[in-house]
Amino acid sequence: MTKLRWFIFSIVIALTLPGFAVKPPNFVIILADDLGYGDLSCYGHPSIRTPNLDRMAAEGMRFTQFYVCAPVCTPSRAGLLTGRLPIRTGMAGAPTTRHVLMRTSTGGLPTNEVTIARALKQKDYATMAVGKWHLGHPTEFLPTSHGFDHFYGLRFSNDMEPAPNIPKMASMSLDPSPEWWNDKLMRDDKIIEESTDLRTLTKRYTGEAVKFIHENKSKPFFLYFAHNYPHVPLFRSKDFEKKSQRGLYGDVVEEIDWSVGEVLKALRKENVAENTLVFFTSDNGPWLVKNLAGGSAGLLKDGKNSTWEGGMREPGIAWWPGKIKAGTTTHRVASSLDFFPTFTKLAGVAEAKDRVSDGFDISPILFKDEPNERKVMFYYNGDQLFAARKGAYKLHVMTYTGYGKEAPKKEEKPLLFNVETDPGEHYEIAAEHPDVVTDIEREMEKHRANLVPGKPQY
Amino acid sequence: MTKLRWFIFSIVIALTLPGFAVKPPNFVIILADDLGYGDLSCYGHPSIRTPNLDRMAAEGMRFTQFYVCAPVCTPSRAGLLTGRLPIRTGMAGAPTTRHVLMRTSTGGLPTNEVTIARALKQKDYATMAVGKWHLGHPTEFLPTSHGFDHFYGLRFSNDMEPAPNIPKMASMSLDPSPEWWNDKLMRDDKIIEESTDLRTLTKRYTGEAVKFIHENKSKPFFLYFAHNYPHVPLFRSKDFEKKSQRGLYGDVVEEIDWSVGEVLKALRKENVAENTLVFFTSDNGPWLVKNLAGGSAGLLKDGKNSTWEGGMREPGIAWWPGKIKAGTTTHRVASSLDFFPTFTKLAGVAEAKDRVSDGFDISPILFKDEPNERKVMFYYNGDQLFAARKGAYKLHVMTYTGYGKEAPKKEEKPLLFNVETDPGEHYEIAAEHPDVVTDIEREMEKHRANLVPGKPQY
Repeated sequence: MTKLRWFIFSIVIALTLPGFAVKPPNFVIILADDLGYGDLSCYGHPSIRTPNLDRMAAEGMRFTQFYVCAPVCTPSRAGLLTGRLPIRTGMAGAPTTRHVLMRTSTGGLPTNEVTIARALKQKDYATMAVGKWHLGHPTEFLPTSHGFDHFYGLRFSNDMEPAPNIPKMASMSLDPSPEWWNDKLMRDDKIIEESTDLRTLTKRYTGEAVKFIHENKSKPFFLYFAHNYPHVPLFRSKDFEKKSQRGLYGDVVEEIDWSVGEVLKALRKENVAENTLVFFTSDNGPWLVKNLAGGSAGLLKDGKNSTWEGGMREPGIAWWPGKIKAGTTTHRVASSLDFFPTFTKLAGVAEAKDRVSDGFDISPILFKDEPNERKVMFYYNGDQLFAARKGAYKLHVMTYTGYGKEAPKKEEKPLLFNVETDPGEHYEIAAEHPDVVTDIEREMEKHRANLVPGKPQY
Repeated sequence: MTKLRWFIFSIVIALTLPGFAVKPPNFVIILADDLGYGDLSCYGHPSIRTPNLDRMAAEGMRFTQFYVCAPVCTPSRAGLLTGRLPIRTGMAGAPTTRHVLMRTSTGGLPTNEVTIARALKQKDYATMAVGKWHLGHPTEFLPTSHGFDHFYGLRFSNDMEPAPNIPKMASMSLDPSPEWWNDKLMRDDKIIEESTDLRTLTKRYTGEAVKFIHENKSKPFFLYFAHNYPHVPLFRSKDFEKKSQRGLYGDVVEEIDWSVGEVLKALRKENVAENTLVFFTSDNGPWLVKNLAGGSAGLLKDGKNSTWEGGMREPGIAWWPGKIKAGTTTHRVASSLDFFPTFTKLAGVAEAKDRVSDGFDISPILFKDEPNERKVMFYYNGDQLFAARKGAYKLHVMTYTGYGKEAPKKEEKPLLFNVETDPGEHYEIAAEHPDVVTDIEREMEKHRANLVPGKPQY
């Protein structure tokens, strides 16, 4: 052998020895709560400042067609963590009436479901959930029962533990008192504070996230960082009081933006940025009925609770220095259902064959801005299939306006929109495209015919 | 003297000699027609790709509160070029009915008004207007009568010279035929084509702009590049046919984006980028009644013809490598009325004392993101003062929906909005802030009391 050949041979041997094996990548999901498509500066908001998220987008990839799988908290989170539509896991209730887990709910995400955290445990990932859970509050359903080594946060939404004699409409207040709620803060499966100061949540969550990164920098890790905000009631720390042109809601989003900056800074400081995929998104669209305490979906129609685009299309920013091309805007369709297959594949976890997955590996989008295998996107409201999208076309068979007081409505004739030429869903075009209507109707029938719903949990 | 002192002394002398005098900066205004606040990727549009404008913003400054002085073409352009409200120059007709110059109009921007081009002539600028004029079509009102050395373009909107037997609603068509219009193309004050192929406009305009930069790189120059698009009817060259996810409207905007890239490339190639201030904006909001042939104001209310934010708040991107800090988003209020005082001051033109100016130098914003002297912003529809903004508050005394069929309406009680916390103008708050209402009413009275309207030109 020549010297060069010897050298290459030695390198190859070295890389295959266990001690030298390439460490699988770390994953960080940062999830905002009720943040709308139009609420970040890099998505066009005129008065909310989000320099850290803007920079994250400038250094990474910004999605313009990123979807969640439900227009409310509980099912959206269930789908995000399992890669499976909430209807399959029993996490989809009746549309608009019983659509998230309540305080009185006794169910939760069944423990025979596999979350991203549990799947990554096969490869010895350190795992932590920081922030809001909302996938079941009995101990058997907590993050620590779902593959997370640790949990620090609230079991559900910040408005779910009101104090006695709370004023009417308290959650919509633009000057709410922290005394109006008695939210219990958890560490792992124990309550550590009976009445948490809601002004401190974002800051303390951020501290826990940064600490987790520091302590696990030498292992592969998965951090699921689910903020409680900008879900109402809106609180922020003193540092962000009256800082935003957008008022209280803006202050709260700007503190989340700060928090994102701290997480990315920690990844850089610990020298793991180049081995970490970070994804920022929101669980569903803005809660419009909360008026100025709710956000904006920008030019999209409607918000939270609704299967119009504003309810389920979200900001989506992916960041992985050296792997994702800086400053890319992608117009590919992707979904929070895709995290599971993408992360597990990148980590080298064997694909589970015993259950249906609704996600698709988004590596082709992330690393080459090329299409992945997804053909159809389903829009569920609770356990009802309201709409489906194929290519640029979206067919609504049922509609409900998150804003409105009226009940969900079965459309006599399905409504068709081209959500690329007409992202605001203003111009109904079913009559001009009967073939498209038929095609999407068939996709919906096929989907329904093969669907095995999970045992309802609420 | 020491050697160092001699050296410094020589440099100072050299710089003050005429041949070495620092050349005043070049100015380029790129104006789109009917482009909405939400129509660029860097302002949040999900399916229009604008990589060149996004890069221009990343290298420069993006304004989130940039305004024009009228919600339609003619007055907006009159104000932009003179720095004076259109009512002062006779360029403001009756709201919504006679609000732009028609083909039958015989008036135009009076030649005793001073445009940016004419003012810069005091400093020997080379000047050219490329694209749409719409400030009077008799020869005495053309660009060449207003301080521009050259003109290449159309005298007014692209829909104003229809061919005989044009189909109904032709301008709204998503597949219009170039045969439906006989637009006359001008060079200087001569018609050079009786019926221009509207598909070629953007490309040919761009060629002229690049040529002007090349030929004048050694002089100071002012280029006013006013695109005819995305005003309807929508045409684009073969290179942009069916390229955009947003359909025809997107194709047209993406060709304008390409054109912006060509202009910036030319400035770099000719080594004048670092001595050139480029500003991109639009003349007014999107023409919503044109449906998919019109654009989007994003989360702002309404569009063209209206004094709601969507009619008069526009994308605004400033670019000057080395002078404007790259990647800044500014939330300061600025106006197209400010170009005149800003450019003339930067060029060293003495301030004219014989006329009222409505603009304010925006150098503090451009170079330091610090406030300038503007306190109040007026929203005119035709010759009527509809609204005024002071700080974050906007008071509407009259309203008109660009969309609607109804006539402009005098509000019984003025409507107050905070357009920073509530940029979509959803929540009326006059009752909560009587002092603010009174204060803005006083500003409006003071403005009206001092106003000398110009002789109406149409």
